[in-house]
Amino acid sequence: MIEKVAIVGTGLIGTSVGLALRRAGFSCEIVGIDTSVAEVTTAVQSGAITRAGGFEDVVAADVIVLAVPVLAIMDWMKQLAPLKRPGQLCTDVGSTKLAICDLAGLYYAGGGFLAGHPMAGKESGGAALADASLFDGAMWLFTPIFEEMTAIEVEWRGWVAKFGARTMDVDAERHDKICAWVSHLPQMVSTAMSAMFEDEFAAQPELAAEFGAIGGRALREMTRLGASPYSMWRDVAFTNTKPLAATIFALEQRLAHLRENLKTPELREEFEKANAFRGKRS
Amino acid sequence: MIEKVAIVGTGLIGTSVGLALRRAGFSCEIVGIDTSVAEVTTAVQSGAITRAGGFEDVVAADVIVLAVPVLAIMDWMKQLAPLKRPGQLCTDVGSTKLAICDLAGLYYAGGGFLAGHPMAGKESGGAALADASLFDGAMWLFTPIFEEMTAIEVEWRGWVAKFGARTMDVDAERHDKICAWVSHLPQMVSTAMSAMFEDEFAAQPELAAEFGAIGGRALREMTRLGASPYSMWRDVAFTNTKPLAATIFALEQRLAHLRENLKTPELREEFEKANAFRGKRS
Repeated sequence: MIEKVAIVGTGLIGTSVGLALRRAGFSCEIVGIDTSVAEVTTAVQSGAITRAGGFEDVVAADVIVLAVPVLAIMDWMKQLAPLKRPGQLCTDVGSTKLAICDLAGLYYAGGGFLAGHPMAGKESGGAALADASLFDGAMWLFTPIFEEMTAIEVEWRGWVAKFGARTMDVDAERHDKICAWVSHLPQMVSTAMSAMFEDEFAAQPELAAEFGAIGGRALREMTRLGASPYSMWRDVAFTNTKPLAATIFALEQRLAHLRENLKTPELREEFEKANAFRGKRS
Repeated sequence: MIEKVAIVGTGLIGTSVGLALRRAGFSCEIVGIDTSVAEVTTAVQSGAITRAGGFEDVVAADVIVLAVPVLAIMDWMKQLAPLKRPGQLCTDVGSTKLAICDLAGLYYAGGGFLAGHPMAGKESGGAALADASLFDGAMWLFTPIFEEMTAIEVEWRGWVAKFGARTMDVDAERHDKICAWVSHLPQMVSTAMSAMFEDEFAAQPELAAEFGAIGGRALREMTRLGASPYSMWRDVAFTNTKPLAATIFALEQRLAHLRENLKTPELREEFEKANAFRGKRS
């Protein structure tokens, strides 16, 4: 029975996990820890965590949820592994999984670690935007490194299901490749487009007002993720470099092909393929 | 006084213009003409047009609204110009304006033409998706080629304002350059990404289900315009080739820069620029 949960990192995802636990009926203690006093205070005020905790609370928890950027997750794993207790589960919500699972193979060889990744988020972070329903209908991926589940892992998976999330187990390397396509590439395209527009404005300030006024829903949607924080995506780029570079390069080539065929029948083929893709998931 | 409007092309935009006219209190005749009987029937049933008309109705109208793709607009202009009557206004809603205005300079040298472009639409076309409120809060650009406004032009501009749209006059060449950035580039990126995903699925069918399930809001948004019809965008690509090619090439270079710097501090600069862009228009 999980009687104490520690959430490391009370930003958007960490605080939402606390709120989702409460909404699902979890009534025991949830402690939160964050380098920002403001974030952890917001998390307490929202009811997501019982109180701000310290390192000793994390070590004493039945379930530790690492909800910080990937490299920070790996730092915490190294610190916590030597102190792990029987029956304790350490889990994470990091955006890339192979580096974390490789590290878990070294540090948690005896068990006690479950890598996870909720496919949910917003373009802006922070406890203030946390939401008990953030995971409703979202996919929560696990990339387990052990074949057998411990009792506490089964219990934790049960809570995640009660968050309203659908869960799926997938190989870590495969996870990172899929996410490079469906999550990391869209982010990088949105960042590149937003940064490019920012430069266009700086070069032609008289355009800025017109751009804002003329650009409609398409522009807003394509640049929405431009607001995403570097602090989180730096770690994604650092730990999923090759798959991500491959998807970006593929899109560069695709755009060049389209650019070279603006007046040829090849353009029709691209639109028809795009229509087919959208038709299958509209 | 406008007593008869003819809408050429009763698709999404044309039918929405009819509905917006009715919502704004226009009570006289609106005839519609379309190569598709189904579309024009839907437009009649929705109340957007009084009845399906013929070529003679178009010639007899006080205001002719050309709401077909750009090359078809130009064909209509050539047909209608020799038949134009004093006090009649021919206007259009095409996505590019320089080619249309150049043609108007030849065929409507004596006046009677006003080029326009409502910055509104949906990824799918058709009269069935038409909406009286489509232009609410949207920008409706005009690229006039005559300095003075005729009485009927003033009246038509008044109706557009009553649609809930904001209007702005802009030079046609400038219009096409701005739209290449804020409208045509987002379309081509969405088409390229959707087409690329379609190919990935075909190559790895077992991925398809996972892609759909794992890809969240970001993937949906970035590929939404992948559903847009070739028939319309062919003409945009054909009549705005150079400005559009320039924006696509700029994005290719930007993506290459980002790809080459996934592990360097340059990545931070790109995210900070993107954050700045979004901060100004969130």
